[in-house]
This record gives sequence, structure tokens and C-alpha cells, in this order.
Amino acid sequence: MTRYKLIVEYDGAGFVGWQRQDNGPSVQAAIEAAVHGFCGERVTAHAAGRTDAGVHALGMAVTLDLTRAAETDTLRDALNAHLRPAPVAVLSAEAVADDFHARFSATGRAYLYRMVNRRAPLVLDRGRAWWVPVPLDAEAMHAAAQVLIGKHDFTSFRASECQAKTPVKTLDDLTVARDGEVIAMTVRARSFLHNQVRILAGTLRLVGEGKWTRADLAAALNARDRAAAGPTAPPEGLYFLRATY
Amino acid sequence: MTRYKLIVEYDGAGFVGWQRQDNGPSVQAAIEAAVHGFCGERVTAHAAGRTDAGVHALGMAVTLDLTRAAETDTLRDALNAHLRPAPVAVLSAEAVADDFHARFSATGRAYLYRMVNRRAPLVLDRGRAWWVPVPLDAEAMHAAAQVLIGKHDFTSFRASECQAKTPVKTLDDLTVARDGEVIAMTVRARSFLHNQVRILAGTLRLVGEGKWTRADLAAALNARDRAAAGPTAPPEGLYFLRATY
Repeated sequence: MTRYKLIVEYDGAGFVGWQRQDNGPSVQAAIEAAVHGFCGERVTAHAAGRTDAGVHALGMAVTLDLTRAAETDTLRDALNAHLRPAPVAVLSAEAVADDFHARFSATGRAYLYRMVNRRAPLVLDRGRAWWVPVPLDAEAMHAAAQVLIGKHDFTSFRASECQAKTPVKTLDDLTVARDGEVIAMTVRARSFLHNQVRILAGTLRLVGEGKWTRADLAAALNARDRAAAGPTAPPEGLYFLRATY
Repeated sequence: MTRYKLIVEYDGAGFVGWQRQDNGPSVQAAIEAAVHGFCGERVTAHAAGRTDAGVHALGMAVTLDLTRAAETDTLRDALNAHLRPAPVAVLSAEAVADDFHARFSATGRAYLYRMVNRRAPLVLDRGRAWWVPVPLDAEAMHAAAQVLIGKHDFTSFRASECQAKTPVKTLDDLTVARDGEVIAMTVRARSFLHNQVRILAGTLRLVGEGKWTRADLAAALNARDRAAAGPTAPPEGLYFLRATY
């Protein structure tokens, strides 16, 4: 048996999410089917993050085991050939230790949330960002967001269906920066609660609009109540960037 | 009568091109229909560049005349509402002088050609760039391309169906730069021949692959023969950036 780590890019639009489900196509099933097409093996693919429906990945880490070893460039190219035309691509493949696990070995995860802040509807960024037609102050968003850094009870920023054992997480970094009409929010933590990044984005929008102050954001965090934070931003703006090990 | 200048973004994928044609939807017809939907007027929209099927625009300049004046923000928003769901958006609208013409008044045009240079097929950039899976040397492409700057007979870089009166054009700027896996070629000139930018991109790829030298590129230019240059790069990598007046 050889374990492989893949780095995978996908467009989440047509998928029910990373995880295999009965109600539609998943990225996991697409990759497992490509492996079967390539070598006939039935494998289970594990990802560093189980993204929701509509959420994209620029560099998802995935592990899977093959009974017969394959040359890594061949594996990458063959999986890409079998994945076609699904919007999933294997960027790289490498052999890793047998006890390395994409999910359980990860020591950090980074996400990007993209907003396009302009009056006109999205065209070339349609499905690739959250369209925010009202003016946002990205500097104010960044400054206020710093109250969230560190170890906190993030109950206010957690979906009601979240199955994590504890709402306490450590947010290592949250950066908001504008480049023209694009506002990028990047976040880093060991792990995140369900919908945490999207609720952070939806809440920081309120700061960007001038409706909320830094103190309001701190109060929302301290409330430990999902109703105290802002709305959940839509999935099409969210990208899994990378896992660190 | 009031003349308006619009700045328009569009995804060229579903269109036969800018210009109205019998064989499918055009950007021009979409905009003219939106104007009719907004105010009932039948107008002709003129663009700075008549892009081909599949070619995108980030900032196409368009002029059109309305019998009854409209507030420019209202015009922009109303056209966007009527354009939905077509992948066309009006970024801005302004009133201009009656003798201002998007095409004939333009003193410069800029295009971007995007290549994604990586082994894995495109996913999030699908339809937004030319996938080039073999390694390209962007610095060599930039250096060689400088032989094309200035006033030349560009017959070698002109589609056979080009209807321009003369093949002599002045290329003001051609820059090739890599940012990660993206190679961006930007070009500026008063005007271009039919397919000139795509033939430049297709030919510079040969330089990037190491198949052609700077001297080969100069020889292709001097040959004044379309067969002496490289292939025409696909439309999905090409973007009309802006016109200057």
C-alpha cells in the first residue's frame, strides 16, 4: 500500500460539497471515480477540509491509498484525464508516509473569501465572488477584525448544525485587503467551525458598510449566540486555499 | 439627442462577438435590447473594438444616442437590470459630446492575453485563459517581443479575412510578465489588425517554449506572410482592456 497526497483545485458550483452524499455529485466521489477509472481500485479520499456546496478550492489537500504504487506524475495526469469534464484538477501528487492523513495531520488551514465591491453586477467574476454593491471600507473591516484574533468561544460564528465538540477555536490571522474592486479576506487557524469563515465575512460586511463598529464586533463575539453575529455570506466567495502540516 | 459613453464588461463565451449577426447572440444586440427595454428607443451601439466570438471585455467603450436624456447612474443601473441574465454589465455611463464616437474617436486600444502555464487542466480559469501545459519562459517572450514594437507591416500577424486597408500598424507597447502560473501579455496600439493579438500570443508561445528565437520572430515579421508566424491563440484568453481618447 502506498499513500498519496494530492493538491486539488475545484469549482464548487456543481457539487453538493466535498463529501459524498446521496443528493448529488461530490468532489470526493469524482476523485474516487477517477482513481477507479485509472487503476480499478476502490479507494476512500480524505480531504483537509470538508467544504460545503458551492465552495471552491485552490489547493485542497487530499490523501488516498493505492495497493499498487504509481509514478506521481502519471497519477496526476491520469486522474486529470479521468476527471474530465468535471471542474476538478489534480495540481500535484506525492507519496507520503502511511500515517499521514490529510485531515487529522493538518496543523493549519487557510481560506480566502472574495467580495467584489462595485455597483455593476458581476460578469467575469460571476460564481467566483460575493457581489457587494454598496461601498465597503476594507481598512475598517481589517482593523475591527483584529478583535477576533486568538483563542475564543466562537459560538456566535458557528452554524446551528455544526457538529464540532467545542466552539472554542484559535484564529491565527485574519486579513482584509482591497485591490481595486476586489476585497479579499484571508483567514488562518488550526481548524474552523461549520460556516465560521462565511459568518465572519457576512459580519465584517456590516463593519465595512459602517453599520457596525469594532465594539459591536467584540460584543457579538462575547454574546456566544449565533443570532448576535451577521448573516452567512454566500458560498461562491469562499475558497479553501491550503492546509499546512 | 444626448450621446452616452458606456464602459462595458462581458464574458464572450456565449456570443458570436461584439457585432450583431444573424447566426447567434451578440453583445451589441444585448445592449441595444436593454436600451429598448429601458426606454423604448431603438438605438445603434458602437464599440471601440469589434471583438470576435469568445473574446471577453473588461472595459469596452461603447457609445449610443438617446432622444430623451437619462440620469447616468439610472441609465447604468437600468441597463444592468435589463441585461440580466446575459453576461454583460455596464460599469459606468457618462454623457459625452455629440461628435464623440467610441470607435472613430479612439486614439489607443489595450488588450490583455492571459495564459495559464501549468501541467493541470484549468478549473477556476476555464474559459478565462489559454491553458499552456508545457513550460514557458516569460522573460524570453518579453525580450523577443520588443522587436515588434514600432511601425511595421504586420501582414504576418493578420488573419486572411482581415478587411483593414493597410497592414501597417504601430505597436506602442507589448509586455509579457509572469505572476505565478499566469502569464499576462498586454499590448497597446492605436488599432490592431484582425486576430493580430491572438497571432502575437500564439507566436510568442513558440518563443516561450524555446522553439523560436528573437531572430526567428524578426524574420517572421519581415516575411510579410501569415504562414511565417505562429498559430492563432484561442479567443478565451483575450480581453479588451480599454480604449483611450
